Amino acid sequence: MKNTAICAGSFDPPTLGHFNIIERGLKIFDTIIVGLGINLAKQPILTVAERLDLLKQILKNHKNVEVVSFDGLLTAFARAKNCRILLRGIRNMSDYEYESQMALANKALYPELETVFMMTEGQYSHLSSTFIREIIASGGSCAGMIHPLVEKMLVRKLRK
Amino acid sequence: MKNTAICAGSFDPPTLGHFNIIERGLKIFDTIIVGLGINLAKQPILTVAERLDLLKQILKNHKNVEVVSFDGLLTAFARAKNCRILLRGIRNMSDYEYESQMALANKALYPELETVFMMTEGQYSHLSSTFIREIIASGGSCAGMIHPLVEKMLVRKLRK
Amino acid sequence: MKNTAICAGSFDPPTLGHFNIIERGLKIFDTIIVGLGINLAKQPILTVAERLDLLKQILKNHKNVEVVSFDGLLTAFARAKNCRILLRGIRNMSDYEYESQMALANKALYPELETVFMMTEGQYSHLSSTFIREIIASGGSCAGMIHPLVEKMLVRKLRK
Amino acid sequence: MKNTAICAGSFDPPTLGHFNIIERGLKIFDTIIVGLGINLAKQPILTVAERLDLLKQILKNHKNVEVVSFDGLLTAFARAKNCRILLRGIRNMSDYEYESQMALANKALYPELETVFMMTEGQYSHLSSTFIREIIASGGSCAGMIHPLVEKMLVRKLRK
Amino acid sequence: MKNTAICAGSFDPPTLGHFNIIERGLKIFDTIIVGLGINLAKQPILTVAERLDLLKQILKNHKNVEVVSFDGLLTAFARAKNCRILLRGIRNMSDYEYESQMALANKALYPELETVFMMTEGQYSHLSSTFIREIIASGGSCAGMIHPLVEKMLVRKLRK
Amino acid sequence: MKNTAICAGSFDPPTLGHFNIIERGLKIFDTIIVGLGINLAKQPILTVAERLDLLKQILKNHKNVEVVSFDGLLTAFARAKNCRILLRGIRNMSDYEYESQMALANKALYPELETVFMMTEGQYSHLSSTFIREIIASGGSCAGMIHPLVEKMLVRKLRK
Repeated sequence: MKNTAICAGSFDPPTLGHFNIIERGLKIFDTIIVGLGINLAKQPILTVAERLDLLKQILKNHKNVEVVSFDGLLTAFARAKNCRILLRGIRNMSDYEYESQMALANKALYPELETVFMMTEGQYSHLSSTFIREIIASGGSCAGMIHPLVEKMLVRKLRK
Repeated sequence: MKNTAICAGSFDPPTLGHFNIIERGLKIFDTIIVGLGINLAKQPILTVAERLDLLKQILKNHKNVEVVSFDGLLTAFARAKNCRILLRGIRNMSDYEYESQMALANKALYPELETVFMMTEGQYSHLSSTFIREIIASGGSCAGMIHPLVEKMLVRKLRK
Repeated sequence: MKNTAICAGSFDPPTLGHFNIIERGLKIFDTIIVGLGINLAKQPILTVAERLDLLKQILKNHKNVEVVSFDGLLTAFARAKNCRILLRGIRNMSDYEYESQMALANKALYPELETVFMMTEGQYSHLSSTFIREIIASGGSCAGMIHPLVEKMLVRKLRK
Repeated sequence: MKNTAICAGSFDPPTLGHFNIIERGLKIFDTIIVGLGINLAKQPILTVAERLDLLKQILKNHKNVEVVSFDGLLTAFARAKNCRILLRGIRNMSDYEYESQMALANKALYPELETVFMMTEGQYSHLSSTFIREIIASGGSCAGMIHPLVEKMLVRKLRK
Repeated sequence: MKNTAICAGSFDPPTLGHFNIIERGLKIFDTIIVGLGINLAKQPILTVAERLDLLKQILKNHKNVEVVSFDGLLTAFARAKNCRILLRGIRNMSDYEYESQMALANKALYPELETVFMMTEGQYSHLSSTFIREIIASGGSCAGMIHPLVEKMLVRKLRK
Repeated sequence: MKNTAICAGSFDPPTLGHFNIIERGLKIFDTIIVGLGINLAKQPILTVAERLDLLKQILKNHKNVEVVSFDGLLTAFARAKNCRILLRGIRNMSDYEYESQMALANKALYPELETVFMMTEGQYSHLSSTFIREIIASGGSCAGMIHPLVEKMLVRKLRK
């Protein structure tokens, strides 16, 4: 499946930066599989079901996007999907460093796998899920950072 | 042309790192246009004709690779080729910083253009055209760094 | 208040690097508000009252320094203080990357806010609160890293 | 002169990024001295007179901005102006590294001098004088990158 | 002891990257003391006894390597061993930044101490103990990343 | 020669940072060969003879230091000296990136060669030969940056 790429993350919550990469990725790839990685070690704010639901609703107009969760290694997920391309967004140099190490590590586990990168656009480059959770918890507004559906759900979760 | 990407450079000389990116790029894209940028400001070691000839010979078995030179802005070349994807290799953090700035600058000039990046594989990450020219000029061997045809031509040029 | 800047942190403990930035900041600004951010998520070594007390004692000779704690977002604190300038010290490239993202994020929440940076001077550039806590806990001396009053209080807390 | 800062550069040409830093700097400082450094080693595109003229015209509505050229060391210029604050814009990590070294070096030459930094805003972070000269020389448009007066003069110089 | 260096770490688990640095370090130093730092704050996967046992077994053919654990500060351990040289491997820029700060901090605590660095070789530069634990826990293979004895023990610990 | 390292550079001029690395290197190595690389491409300020003379005079009290010039590749010089260790000082992250690439490149040319790094101490980390030449040419003083003998010779050369 040459024209299919996986775009994986924990999306807790998904930001407009994530959707920007997915939408620009659709200019390169025919199909994008949005893979929600279930990391049992971290305690998430949103449940897996909530995150899947948000991703599916917000991306519902993109016919060529599949939203699915996975646990275990990303390389195992990519093999199971018979997909040999990972798409990653890079916001800054720390991301670059982490991602370049992960690309090497993933290639060691799955040699056919190629990782391609796109730079997060300027207006999204300062967004992080941690920062957004903090703003919402403190009563601030995240307009321009997250989709209104995401904000609504986060407010319900973090300000109860 | 969704599945065509431009891979541009001055290729003075082309290194095995360049060919590695082009070959791995063919796992992502159906066609790659190798664009040799003619930079009138820099005094090259190899002429444009010599570099085109080397690129064509070494890539001759890849039917989906087109080798062509251009002068002026890369974005003008991409428009003329009706191509909206640039493929760039990144060796290290300095490359990342430069490339992320160029991606923004090119997008300002040609908003439909997307730049995608691949990390240069470890064994090629220390290669630079400058370093290779210096080794050849000093009488050293560049086996494992450049194609034998490139080495042969560089030796002829730099050790006369 | 053009000539007032906020210098915020968790100061757990304050280091000589913090005081160096505050004192050099007084060459630029008429007044500096030292804002002790109360982060409920982190378990501090020193209580808020202890840290406020230390900051006030050590800075008591600077008439133009106000020491005050705040909870919630730094941008909300700045708005409440009617202050449009944040002063931040940068020790190294990781600090730079984090701070440049925070400056963008804070500007998104409070567009009139400007963040200005000063480089931590060489002899303080390796100081971190984490490292200092570790030295004290292991029985080492932090002379030249923290104020004697801070060291005294940390020893009492960490070696009981 | 506590509330005066020097913003120095070669401004060959000045970009909108430069003016953005100067205008945001006026939120911090009462007066900004724009110092055009004459570097005899580099061959400029625009003459000193042309650059001074452009800076003065574009900044003419800011009463608290003084535009002046200097040769020799920036620290000597700052001493002559009796000014103890340098204001610098930082676009990215390479700028940060260079600037943090220069801040140390300048402090070694003029110990009372403090350098303060502001981050270049996102839309200007990819601008460089080199890149702009290249676009103009290749016949491209630099709208959104440089002031129309600057573009007009560059076109006259670079496309004759 | 001019020709003795300490190579310290938590080794939870040791990777082939660690052994590569130790072995290359033996080309520089006559003796290397492998110091296993006991960090009471972190909850390790392998016990101190297990890690000591693995290090000793894998390094048993190197007569000039001493494996020993220590708690408290690394500088206190170096003083106790009468050793004035630390040997550190650097995988990437984040490592560099952290290590350069630690070198300064350690020198403040023990002025005679010098830290020397070697670059981790390419094939090991993506290895991290965290990543390896994750692969093993997910059922993957770490061949080429860790010694078979380490893998065997990790599998027993992480897949029970 | 396990205890001999080469410390190479163009030393145009040598700075106190260079001597700091050489002197600290003598705590690690029995002998240090200071190799002055003759780069025909660059137009130096000081002649090879002048630089050799300065290095020899300033280092004359160190019996275990040999000062010698070489042309061609550093790896060829190391082979000729039968030396398998390079010692390099790193001032900052740009140096790190450049040096880590050179270490890999040199190892490709001479596989037995190991490069070890020491961090330049804080008070020397902002020194560069370029900056020093500029200060001297502008009539400034470089006390604390270069040896008085070096300053005397530079003044004679740059202010005639």
